[in-house]
Amino acid sequence: MKSDLEKSFEFIIELEKLKSIDRKIKPVGLDRYENSAEHSWHIAIVALALGDFSNEKIDISRVVKMLLVHDIGEIDAGDVIFFDDNGKEEAKSKELESVNRIFGILPEEKRQEFFDLWDEFENGGSAEAKYARAIDRVMPILQNVNNNGQSWQENGIDKEQVLSKTAYIADGSEVLWESISKKIEVAFEEL
Amino acid sequence: MKSDLEKSFEFIIELEKLKSIDRKIKPVGLDRYENSAEHSWHIAIVALALGDFSNEKIDISRVVKMLLVHDIGEIDAGDVIFFDDNGKEEAKSKELESVNRIFGILPEEKRQEFFDLWDEFENGGSAEAKYARAIDRVMPILQNVNNNGQSWQENGIDKEQVLSKTAYIADGSEVLWESISKKIEVAFEEL
Repeated sequence: MKSDLEKSFEFIIELEKLKSIDRKIKPVGLDRYENSAEHSWHIAIVALALGDFSNEKIDISRVVKMLLVHDIGEIDAGDVIFFDDNGKEEAKSKELESVNRIFGILPEEKRQEFFDLWDEFENGGSAEAKYARAIDRVMPILQNVNNNGQSWQENGIDKEQVLSKTAYIADGSEVLWESISKKIEVAFEEL
Repeated sequence: MKSDLEKSFEFIIELEKLKSIDRKIKPVGLDRYENSAEHSWHIAIVALALGDFSNEKIDISRVVKMLLVHDIGEIDAGDVIFFDDNGKEEAKSKELESVNRIFGILPEEKRQEFFDLWDEFENGGSAEAKYARAIDRVMPILQNVNNNGQSWQENGIDKEQVLSKTAYIADGSEVLWESISKKIEVAFEEL
């Protein structure tokens, strides 16, 4: 029988794999695709920086934890572009299998804690979940706005798709959506 | 005058640069060096996973936040190998300049919040700071243990250096140090 500590170490090493999952976006200023581990770091900090703009009063620490674990399911499922509706549905069930496997490496109590954070991000209706999902969506828009619409252009995404598919940012932060939706308009004019 | 929101967006884009700061270690299973952004994500999760092993009762949320910001100073200062005493001293003052510049992009209140987290990690005597520094140190040891001592070998670091320089892990977690110090012994026998 493995000790709780050995199980935890095994989980930690398993997480290395998220560093090889490439997203569709390139970090501003870098000529390579972003991976899901560095993305997860970035949005956790973004949540802290923009916390005052949430519609509702939130427990920002829970938001940060949700964002840290939200992409771990991609280790088995890969990253699917946000605008691919069919791919997203299939990915969702693969990601559930993936987190069950990966959190399953942990000792019982921790397994539940990590799963609950992941599940709240994916399916939750709390103010924290809404704000966390808004932040996850704001980030690639800010990157595209500063990157000549790189992932929009490479994947043939038009302005109406971006505006309609990301409007739920307002559920987490109306202030952010007001600003971000204007930035989307301006960015597409300049492409 | 920039609005608080525009200042925050500028800060967020500035953080992209941490994704290009290479460390001396390679993630287990990947043939490239780790960058400081994905490292920061990893240890924030590691802190959550190993929180029960802290010597003292801790506010784990503050630990996570500290770990998320602790390497931002490397954006201007670069990463210096942990075993280079002279390099570390010089880096420390460069990192202070760097975080003053980067957190200085933020609105006043947020600037202070981020600086306080960074400063507590670097200089603090709290239980949270001790545990956070232990976690930051545990991670590259686990990677070396699973990676045939890659960064030890590439940089000519011997067992005594590792054991003496990382013994402060015990200040944050005696349980972790007991386990990790044994792993160091075994790993060097197998090199």
